Amino acid sequence: MRGPGETVVLGVDPGTAVTGYGVVRSGADGGLSLVECGVIRTDARAELADRLRDIHLGVIEVIERTHPAAMAVEGVFYAKNARTSVVLGHARGAVLLAASLRGLRVAEYPPAEVKSAVVGAGRATKDQVGLMVQRLLKLRAVPKPHDAADGIAIALTHCFRGYGPTAKAPLDLKLKMLGLPGGRR
Amino acid sequence: MRGPGETVVLGVDPGTAVTGYGVVRSGADGGLSLVECGVIRTDARAELADRLRDIHLGVIEVIERTHPAAMAVEGVFYAKNARTSVVLGHARGAVLLAASLRGLRVAEYPPAEVKSAVVGAGRATKDQVGLMVQRLLKLRAVPKPHDAADGIAIALTHCFRGYGPTAKAPLDLKLKMLGLPGGRR
Repeated sequence: MRGPGETVVLGVDPGTAVTGYGVVRSGADGGLSLVECGVIRTDARAELADRLRDIHLGVIEVIERTHPAAMAVEGVFYAKNARTSVVLGHARGAVLLAASLRGLRVAEYPPAEVKSAVVGAGRATKDQVGLMVQRLLKLRAVPKPHDAADGIAIALTHCFRGYGPTAKAPLDLKLKMLGLPGGRR
Repeated sequence: MRGPGETVVLGVDPGTAVTGYGVVRSGADGGLSLVECGVIRTDARAELADRLRDIHLGVIEVIERTHPAAMAVEGVFYAKNARTSVVLGHARGAVLLAASLRGLRVAEYPPAEVKSAVVGAGRATKDQVGLMVQRLLKLRAVPKPHDAADGIAIALTHCFRGYGPTAKAPLDLKLKMLGLPGGRR
């Protein structure tokens, strides 16, 4: 159940083999809690189209179970290997499509911004991200595997960024452009 | 209605702005005819997730109207601009997902193979592809825009290649690897 002033954000870290996700509830008092997190794994021997289907249907399932108000995903990054970037583009497409078909707004955050928002350093390691996710949400252990922790970190970034659910520019970037103080709380 | 020995192939040329498609029927006697062709255009001002939804739903609509047995798409190509390749990957993902969700097998053909199959030269121009598509299908005019003609050319390639609907290696490539004559008819 969602109370007044509450919001639920789904963060997704897309990948062809493993897609991590985290669902975070932000209470009316600003308190954060974890709803659930996990990974969607695909069969490496399956054809790309079928792996995309499994990612897509997996994300749809999470949306239908947790009713998020918005989806946050990592912005496009360009791998050294062009093929890796293109295949990742396919997986991101399957994830973004799930949001659009379920009427969710999508916010994108560059990887460095996610690390910076959660750890305070754009070059934080995966272990540091995991530890900060554990601390911020008062969890008993670091969420495993790291793809799930990354999904949570992306959802947290969206919460910290003051819900500027636009694919183009997060709220605090807009505020900066206006010469106003940033939206981070 | 589909008669015995007939097959219907949907060829798709994915793009974020314009996705071209062509549906070709191959008769029991090997005769080829055009069922329909067209383009799915997306709103350049819309967010990427919503453009992917429009591509995806547009392809689903064509599948439900024409009941193809297989989908053929151009294999991944790497644009000079890494961003272009990645964004194209998203559009391809939306198209491949439509095939998988509707239970269609997907065959991928590199752009040069499509040109080679239809025109006889891997470096053929768009105009040459359009003219050969017109000639092969005995159309009154060259299909416009060229994205639609490209979609038809991809479907024709699949017909000429002897229906090796695998995402990994077309049939004649497999035959070559086995030292057998190619699958082209």
